[in-house]
Amino acid sequence: MSDINELVGRYIDTWNEKDPAARRAAVEKLWTEDGTYTDPLADVAGHDGVDAVIAAVQNQFPDFVFRPGQLADAHHDLARFTWELGPKEGEAVIVGFDVVVLAADGRIRNVHGFLDKVPAM
Amino acid sequence: MSDINELVGRYIDTWNEKDPAARRAAVEKLWTEDGTYTDPLADVAGHDGVDAVIAAVQNQFPDFVFRPGQLADAHHDLARFTWELGPKEGEAVIVGFDVVVLAADGRIRNVHGFLDKVPAM
Repeated sequence: MSDINELVGRYIDTWNEKDPAARRAAVEKLWTEDGTYTDPLADVAGHDGVDAVIAAVQNQFPDFVFRPGQLADAHHDLARFTWELGPKEGEAVIVGFDVVVLAADGRIRNVHGFLDKVPAM
Repeated sequence: MSDINELVGRYIDTWNEKDPAARRAAVEKLWTEDGTYTDPLADVAGHDGVDAVIAAVQNQFPDFVFRPGQLADAHHDLARFTWELGPKEGEAVIVGFDVVVLAADGRIRNVHGFLDKVPAM
């Protein structure tokens, strides 16, 4: 993998992109046509599915932003990294942990997502 | 996923099984025929490949045992868990972090392995 930080940066940027056309273009650039995204709350495949999940999360947390977390490493066609979601200033409300499988063209084939921190109920 | 702890237990048992025939049988029970195992040092597919990787690690660390780590959770067809490798008594020398994708029959299709702790060089 050429650069894990570059991948994480583009991933975070895509989750923060709220313009529908720009977000869709970013999803197409980042995921393969049959690419998947699975986390405890979502399980989708394809650009439509991934884009819809990102839009739904953005609508659920309109004042929050995504940022890279503390962990990022990679080997072979695999990467793992954490990300944070929260207000622009202050502590993260949600911390996610994603393992990503890349296709030969460098795009994402699978996101296996887990949650390290969720809001208290 | 029916029981993440049961899966982790069988996984750990397989890595600890040093009798070649029993280890091979455990691999066949735990992985699909085309199942993969990838970590920073290995990238194999199929029962022969997985069995060879486990045998090599056992030969490299003949006095160490595997045990479950602190983390284990699961959703959809995914699980993540940590494991430890070290002497029977005392602190772990290696801590691994695996994300596992399960097939419909409950066997492992992919292990995406990472290392959280490695021996100081």
